[in-house]
Amino acid sequence: MPHARISPESPIGIFDSGIGGLTVVKAVQAALPAERIIYFGDTARVPYGPKSQVTIRRYAREDTEILMKHQPKMIIVACNTVSALALDVVEEAAGEIPVIGVLKAGAELASRRSGSGRIGVIGTQATIGSNAYACAIQEEDPAIEVISKACPLFVPLAEEGFIDHAATRLVAEEYLAPLVASRIDTLVLGCTHYPILKSMIASIAGPGIDIIDSAEAVADKTRALLAAQGMLNPGTGAAMPHLLVSDLPQKFRELYRLFMGTELPDVELVGV
Amino acid sequence: MPHARISPESPIGIFDSGIGGLTVVKAVQAALPAERIIYFGDTARVPYGPKSQVTIRRYAREDTEILMKHQPKMIIVACNTVSALALDVVEEAAGEIPVIGVLKAGAELASRRSGSGRIGVIGTQATIGSNAYACAIQEEDPAIEVISKACPLFVPLAEEGFIDHAATRLVAEEYLAPLVASRIDTLVLGCTHYPILKSMIASIAGPGIDIIDSAEAVADKTRALLAAQGMLNPGTGAAMPHLLVSDLPQKFRELYRLFMGTELPDVELVGV
Repeated sequence: MPHARISPESPIGIFDSGIGGLTVVKAVQAALPAERIIYFGDTARVPYGPKSQVTIRRYAREDTEILMKHQPKMIIVACNTVSALALDVVEEAAGEIPVIGVLKAGAELASRRSGSGRIGVIGTQATIGSNAYACAIQEEDPAIEVISKACPLFVPLAEEGFIDHAATRLVAEEYLAPLVASRIDTLVLGCTHYPILKSMIASIAGPGIDIIDSAEAVADKTRALLAAQGMLNPGTGAAMPHLLVSDLPQKFRELYRLFMGTELPDVELVGV
Repeated sequence: MPHARISPESPIGIFDSGIGGLTVVKAVQAALPAERIIYFGDTARVPYGPKSQVTIRRYAREDTEILMKHQPKMIIVACNTVSALALDVVEEAAGEIPVIGVLKAGAELASRRSGSGRIGVIGTQATIGSNAYACAIQEEDPAIEVISKACPLFVPLAEEGFIDHAATRLVAEEYLAPLVASRIDTLVLGCTHYPILKSMIASIAGPGIDIIDSAEAVADKTRALLAAQGMLNPGTGAAMPHLLVSDLPQKFRELYRLFMGTELPDVELVGV
């Protein structure tokens, strides 16, 4: 019998290639403080962005299977790269529970917000190379023009803590120049790390460009989905997220603080 | 019977966490043009530098086992991170054939070259955090002072092709400032990617600092070892290296050109 052990009290499963998906955890916690969250970060194989589709799809299946052992009521794919290249793999491994990917949520919000019909998207090499954001946005509105740009250095710069650094500004100006020149009115942050650099990106983009954070978009979509299915957790307590990782490097504690703004809780190490 | 199938004609096995070890392949080819080389790059799990020792040691064993299937006459660990944290694991998995790591080769050369007894070392977070270069250098000469600095952005900057970029210069000036201030006379490039940025690093370090490329050091040590064992390949033909990778991302061809200066030959995909 499907869903035999799934109830409104079941957790929401969220996974990402690494720690970046914590921006999604934070947004879901803010939107849905009563929900239990179980998060898996594949820190042993991070990053997915520069890797091939075949490898990303294999990892996506394994990541989903790790979460499924905890009987979540739904799965959020916090990884833009997996959302772009392997969402079908996740849906298959998730069986009958719903799956939401950051990419589609961000694409939907961007197409609703854009007035001019010119949207910029930035992300990893794999996400941009897949053209998945452009396809998802044009599925919402085929008249929208999408200008995409891979920004491979943003993740390492954010993780190095070069948030407000002159080197990051130089790199960002170079990456964003073709988007600004294309007169976009909306810019999608198509990678979970990029909200860390949001204020610098916004200052280079200028006041005429609306920045879309896919983490917030996916949190809104999650609330709507759970409400429609009568699956919102009726509780009131906001428990700490249950954290699973495939590697626990020295820097993890520092990165957790960067992303979540709080101290690292207990984490569970799982094999991949 | 050990070595039953090992002969001077057997290949030299070389591995790295990714494509960076090709700088070692290039140096070995230059020093020993008659040798056959089999190279494994763990492109599905790269980078190792930010990961934990437990995970790095597991990967090191698996990488060695992949090369051992090809019956090499020796193994070169081109990965500084593995050389620092898991050389014993490689030696165990390699059985009776010799193993040389870039780290010890670089440390030996640096300690021979330094006049002032003040040596700088730069590398990934894991390599520097392990303190392995400092230990290896002080094993050569306990009086030498070693000043180390992790430079996590150098690999992504090199892979993005930002070789002569103002952002790279800003980052490099910041990373190298404490080393230059410490009046070192020798600087070890403790990561296989760093030779790509050698001229910028040298220009910031200034003419008084001798730059040690561990790839060249390991090639010299390999020649001496094979000569001593009567295991130099007597042939004359310089075959292309046999390339094994665990992932074949879009960017591989471009990166191969960056590291080797030639077009990508056929590669074989292996599972990890």
